[in-house]
Amino acid sequence: MEVYFKRVQYYETDKMGFVHHSNYLRWFEEARLDFMDKKGFSYKSFEDLGYISPVLSAECKYKKSARFGETVKVETKLVSYDVRHKFTYVITDAETGEIRATGETTHCNLDQNGKVVSLKKKMPELFEKFQSYVEE
Amino acid sequence: MEVYFKRVQYYETDKMGFVHHSNYLRWFEEARLDFMDKKGFSYKSFEDLGYISPVLSAECKYKKSARFGETVKVETKLVSYDVRHKFTYVITDAETGEIRATGETTHCNLDQNGKVVSLKKKMPELFEKFQSYVEE
Amino acid sequence: MEVYFKRVQYYETDKMGFVHHSNYLRWFEEARLDFMDKKGFSYKSFEDLGYISPVLSAECKYKKSARFGETVKVETKLVSYDVRHKFTYVITDAETGEIRATGETTHCNLDQNGKVVSLKKKMPELFEKFQSYVEE
Amino acid sequence: MEVYFKRVQYYETDKMGFVHHSNYLRWFEEARLDFMDKKGFSYKSFEDLGYISPVLSAECKYKKSARFGETVKVETKLVSYDVRHKFTYVITDAETGEIRATGETTHCNLDQNGKVVSLKKKMPELFEKFQSYVEE
Repeated sequence: MEVYFKRVQYYETDKMGFVHHSNYLRWFEEARLDFMDKKGFSYKSFEDLGYISPVLSAECKYKKSARFGETVKVETKLVSYDVRHKFTYVITDAETGEIRATGETTHCNLDQNGKVVSLKKKMPELFEKFQSYVEE
Repeated sequence: MEVYFKRVQYYETDKMGFVHHSNYLRWFEEARLDFMDKKGFSYKSFEDLGYISPVLSAECKYKKSARFGETVKVETKLVSYDVRHKFTYVITDAETGEIRATGETTHCNLDQNGKVVSLKKKMPELFEKFQSYVEE
Repeated sequence: MEVYFKRVQYYETDKMGFVHHSNYLRWFEEARLDFMDKKGFSYKSFEDLGYISPVLSAECKYKKSARFGETVKVETKLVSYDVRHKFTYVITDAETGEIRATGETTHCNLDQNGKVVSLKKKMPELFEKFQSYVEE
Repeated sequence: MEVYFKRVQYYETDKMGFVHHSNYLRWFEEARLDFMDKKGFSYKSFEDLGYISPVLSAECKYKKSARFGETVKVETKLVSYDVRHKFTYVITDAETGEIRATGETTHCNLDQNGKVVSLKKKMPELFEKFQSYVEE
């Protein structure tokens, strides 16, 4: 698990007065890329190898709205890594610990031709590295 | 079911070259509000009554990336309406009919104090109207 | 001049209750690409030739806030076309005609290596076509 | 002057491969609110007093595109503070110092009825505080 802190931005709110729900998927992305940075293998270096990891599915359960002025804490876990891989996220208010949202995203790896790539075959060391980050 | 057409915008793409996944939740919203417009009771008029319908959960399955230059078609259904209500969405390429994504969102109705409101009690006619839009 | 209509989206608002100012630049883009569509030479077909037209500068004067529920009308003019080209925009409420904002963007054309390209030399016919759209 | 650092996010890029130009206005906002935080009077506490500071105009000159993976540095100055106030911004690559963009925004203060408020009269101490942050 890696922990990411994010200051809620004004432009992320909508006229209800709190954060627009679509932005939580962006926070998941921020946290996921930060996860990879912290593991020492940035998503940028992954793309530089000629691969991309598009999102196959995303879901979010909204518990209590995040508001402008808050800092949220995102706890990110890689929970499986094979042909597909899955991240889960728990977002809380950084100060009070109150829950904001939970969610998950699944991904696959594609090569430059848009074909699903088996990292296990193509880059076994990297594959094992990613697998070693998996936790339940 | 109501059908909504949306031209994919340049600013909705990311450096992978196709639409960023978070924007599909925004398209769901566009289509959902268009659904209400077409039913003759706009979301704006709902907010003008002092209510809001925040998103409780959202999920999206991405099948094939939408690209700049395309027009997508969003088919929106209201599939349940009680204390909570749920919409489902099917996004296809408007020209070829090829699937792009499917998804659903659930909502509740809150009053101005942020309390869950029973529309059934408070506005029975409106409640029945919404219920009449439900289809499987 | 070409005219583009745009329904204000909920996700474009912020907690002030009206449209976030950054979105007007996105509307300029929507209107600019629609301008090219209407002229019969889409920006997509321009990119397909191997060129891009990044924004060199943008400015916007905000007169009166656009709100959710409104439809805005964007009048777009190409006012110069040489090594650089400039578009101007006037945004009004489509119903009342009340002004919302005015602005302009300047652009150049780059080739695939990121070098400024003289369309006048490389594609004289296309260059003249664009020049013929210029009005004061 | 205050300095703000911002990691470029993936969702801020577009299909040209670098940051979409509209996002620089969002970075200006991030930096401007951070400026106020650092001065010890957050924009949130300003809104809590019943005021808002909408943007009257914004402009940005784009020098060299910011890219995913970079961290940018935003230097923010308050250059005038009266009925209207103006901020200027210089964005550079945090690592190399290379320029990315420059810009400015002007604002006024409105009360809860949307009327321009003279802070000089209503809150002279706060007004003087803000004026003391002005630099050329």
